[in-house]
Amino acid sequence: MALTVSSDGDWSVEAQQSVTYSVRPIHRVLDRTFDMPSTDGHERDLLGRTSGGSMRRVVVADREVMRLYGKKVRAFLDRHGIDYHLIILPGGEATKTMQVVFRICRELDAYGVARRSEPIIVFGGGVLNDVVGMAASIYRRGIERIVFGTTLVAQVDASVGAKTASDYNGHKNRLGTYRPANLIIADRSFLATQERRRLSDGLAEILKLAIVCDSNLFELLEDYGTTVLDEQFQGRTEAGDKAATGIIDAAIAGMLAELHDNLWEGELARATYFGHTWSPKIEMCALERSRSWLPWRRRTWLLHGEAVALDMLLSVFIAHRRNLVSEDEIERIVAIVNRLDLPTWDSLLEEPAVLDQGLEDSVRHRDGKQLAPLPKTIGSVTFVNDITRDEVASAVEWMRSLAGRRMG
Amino acid sequence: MALTVSSDGDWSVEAQQSVTYSVRPIHRVLDRTFDMPSTDGHERDLLGRTSGGSMRRVVVADREVMRLYGKKVRAFLDRHGIDYHLIILPGGEATKTMQVVFRICRELDAYGVARRSEPIIVFGGGVLNDVVGMAASIYRRGIERIVFGTTLVAQVDASVGAKTASDYNGHKNRLGTYRPANLIIADRSFLATQERRRLSDGLAEILKLAIVCDSNLFELLEDYGTTVLDEQFQGRTEAGDKAATGIIDAAIAGMLAELHDNLWEGELARATYFGHTWSPKIEMCALERSRSWLPWRRRTWLLHGEAVALDMLLSVFIAHRRNLVSEDEIERIVAIVNRLDLPTWDSLLEEPAVLDQGLEDSVRHRDGKQLAPLPKTIGSVTFVNDITRDEVASAVEWMRSLAGRRMG
Repeated sequence: MALTVSSDGDWSVEAQQSVTYSVRPIHRVLDRTFDMPSTDGHERDLLGRTSGGSMRRVVVADREVMRLYGKKVRAFLDRHGIDYHLIILPGGEATKTMQVVFRICRELDAYGVARRSEPIIVFGGGVLNDVVGMAASIYRRGIERIVFGTTLVAQVDASVGAKTASDYNGHKNRLGTYRPANLIIADRSFLATQERRRLSDGLAEILKLAIVCDSNLFELLEDYGTTVLDEQFQGRTEAGDKAATGIIDAAIAGMLAELHDNLWEGELARATYFGHTWSPKIEMCALERSRSWLPWRRRTWLLHGEAVALDMLLSVFIAHRRNLVSEDEIERIVAIVNRLDLPTWDSLLEEPAVLDQGLEDSVRHRDGKQLAPLPKTIGSVTFVNDITRDEVASAVEWMRSLAGRRMG
Repeated sequence: MALTVSSDGDWSVEAQQSVTYSVRPIHRVLDRTFDMPSTDGHERDLLGRTSGGSMRRVVVADREVMRLYGKKVRAFLDRHGIDYHLIILPGGEATKTMQVVFRICRELDAYGVARRSEPIIVFGGGVLNDVVGMAASIYRRGIERIVFGTTLVAQVDASVGAKTASDYNGHKNRLGTYRPANLIIADRSFLATQERRRLSDGLAEILKLAIVCDSNLFELLEDYGTTVLDEQFQGRTEAGDKAATGIIDAAIAGMLAELHDNLWEGELARATYFGHTWSPKIEMCALERSRSWLPWRRRTWLLHGEAVALDMLLSVFIAHRRNLVSEDEIERIVAIVNRLDLPTWDSLLEEPAVLDQGLEDSVRHRDGKQLAPLPKTIGSVTFVNDITRDEVASAVEWMRSLAGRRMG
C-alpha cells in the first residue's frame, strides 16, 4: 500500500489487492477411480484441504444435481474425509434472492465455519454460483469458495469471472459483488445428464463470445455446434470429443481474456455485454410471467441464454442496418441460433416498454451511456451510443418475420 | 491481469485491483464562506463533481446531524448546485441492519442513480458509514461513496479503513465487505455539538491505537485527553487547538499505517484488533438488553468504544499478569480510561457465557486462532493464542475491584 500525504495535509491511500484463482478442467471427478491430487505443503486440493487443515465444509448443492448424483456426491465427500453440512437448493433464477443469501449465511453461522480455512463448496450451475458467491462474499466480509460447475453455463461463463449476484427489487443482479471463486472445477461429464435446453442455454453464452471476439470459435460452432449438443459434450465420436474440448477451452480462454485488466469492470465498454443490453429486462419480465402461471403449468419462460439470444439478434440486425455486418454474416448468425435450438422470437418483444426500459436501465448500469456492443464483422466488436427507438422497432419487425419464416 | 496456463491444461488467473482513496481534514465545510476547491479537468471535488458531470446525488444523513445542521446541509448542497434525494436515518447500532441496507438500495433504484458518476453522500458517524457503505458496495456491485464524518469515531476510525458492515443474526458486523469510501472528509467543527459521551467513545479507539502502536500518542492523550474532551476538539485554547489537531492527525496516520498491506485483512494478526476480542459480543449483548427496556427508558447501554474500553482493560490485565505490561503502565492505562470518561466495569462482565462466547467467536473470525493482541509495554503489541478461562476470570475480578475503588 502506498500512503502519500500531499502538501496541504491530505492523506492519499493507494492499495493493491492481489486476487488469484484457478479454473481446472477435470474429468469424472466423482468417480471412485478419480485420482485426487495430493496436498503437499500448503497447497490446497480440490476440496480446499491442506495437510493437517480443517475438513469441515458447508456444501451447497443443486436439487437436480443431488437427484442425479446425490449418492456419488456424498460418497465423494465421505471418501475424502469431509465432515459436511449439506444445503440443497433448487436451481433457476427464482433461487437468486437475498432470502436465499440469508439462509446460507444463517447456516454458515449455525455450522460455525472458520473465516479462512473452511471454504464453502458448490455443486451447481450459474444461479447457485451467483447466490452462494454473494453469501460467501459478504459473510464475515468474505470466505473462500470452491465451485464444481455442473452446467455448461457455470463451466464456461458464470463461475469463471468474478461476479456474484442476487436479483433484487424486480431487477436482475441488482445486488452483487466482485469476488471470484478460489477454484472452479469444470467437469464436462456432468453435462451428460443436462437437459438439451440447458445445454443450448450455455451455448448461447459461447456464441456471444464467438460473434464479438473469436471467429474461429464461431466456425467451430458452425461445424460442430449440433454435434456437441447431440452428444451432450460427451464425445461419443472422435470429432465430437475434440470439438467438445475445443469449444469449452476456447470459451473459458476467451472469457478469461475478456476479463483481462477488467475483473472489476473498471471499463464499462465490454464485449461480453453483447447480448446483455436488453436481455436482463426481458429475462426478469419472463420470470414475472412464469410466476403468474398456475403451479402445475409453471416452468421457466426464458432461460438466461435464451434471452441473450434474442438480444443478440436485435443487436445483429441493428449492426447489419449500420453496415457493420454483411447479409451473409447475418444469415450465418441466424442459422447458428436456429441450429443451437435457441429462440428467435418471444412475445415479450412486442411490448415496447420492455425494450425501452431494458435499454434505459443498461444505460444507467453503463454510467449514462448506451455503450452497446455490436459485432463488426464476425469476431470483432464496436460500441455505439446512439441506438434509436426506430432501429429497435425495425429489428423487432425483422425478428417477427424470421419467426414467421421458421414457422411457415 | 496475469493469465497463465499450467502444463496440465489448468488456467491460473492473477489479477491486481488498485484501490485509491483520500482522507481530507477540512475545517468548517458547511460555512457559507467555505472555499470549495474547483474541479479542473477530471478531478472531483468534495461532492464528487467533475466539470460537466452529473450533479444528482442520493444523500444519507444522520437524524441528529440534520436536527443540528439540517439547514446548513441543505444550503451547502443547494449552493453547490446538487440535485439531491435525502434519506434521514437515526445513528446508533440499531440502524446497522440489512433492512436499512435494503431501504437504501431501494431508494437508489427509485432515484435511478448512475453506476459510476453519482456517488452516494453520507453525513454521519461510524454506523451510517458502515451501513451506507454496505449498501453502496453491493448495489450494482458497487457505486462510489463520499463520507462527511460527523463524529470522532467516523473521522479517525470507521470511515478511514475499507470495512463496511451490517449486524446480522445477532452478531455484530456479521455481514460486510471491504470497500473504502472514495473520499472521507474529517471536519472537526462537527464535534462542537457532539455529546461528551460520544467524544469519549471516539477517544477509546484512539486510545486503543496509542496503547498498542504509538507511545507518543499515548502521552499526548495523558497530557491533553481531558482538554480536548472539555474543549470538544474546538481548540478554545492554543494548547487545546494544537492537541486536537495533533491527536486527530496521529490517529488517522496510525490507522492508515496499520492498514498498510492489510486493507483486506489478509493478515489476521492485527494490532487494531486490540480491544476487539470480547467487545463485539459484549456490545451485541448490551444492544439486546437496551431493546428489552421500556421505550421511554431506552438508551444505548454501551457504545462501541465503551465496550472496547472494557475489552482493553481485560487484555491489559492479562498482559500485566504475563509481565508484558508493568505495574506503572497498567496504572497509567487505568488512569487514562477514567480520565476519558470510559467505563471500567459493566455487569455483563459477570456473565461468563458472554466472555466465553465472545472469545470463541473471535477465534472463528481469526480462522481458528485467538491471535489476541496484548500490549507489550505501551506502544507495541504481541499476539497470543493461549488465553485461559482462569486468566479472563482473574481479569474480571480485578476490574470489579477497580470499580469498587472508584465508587468507594
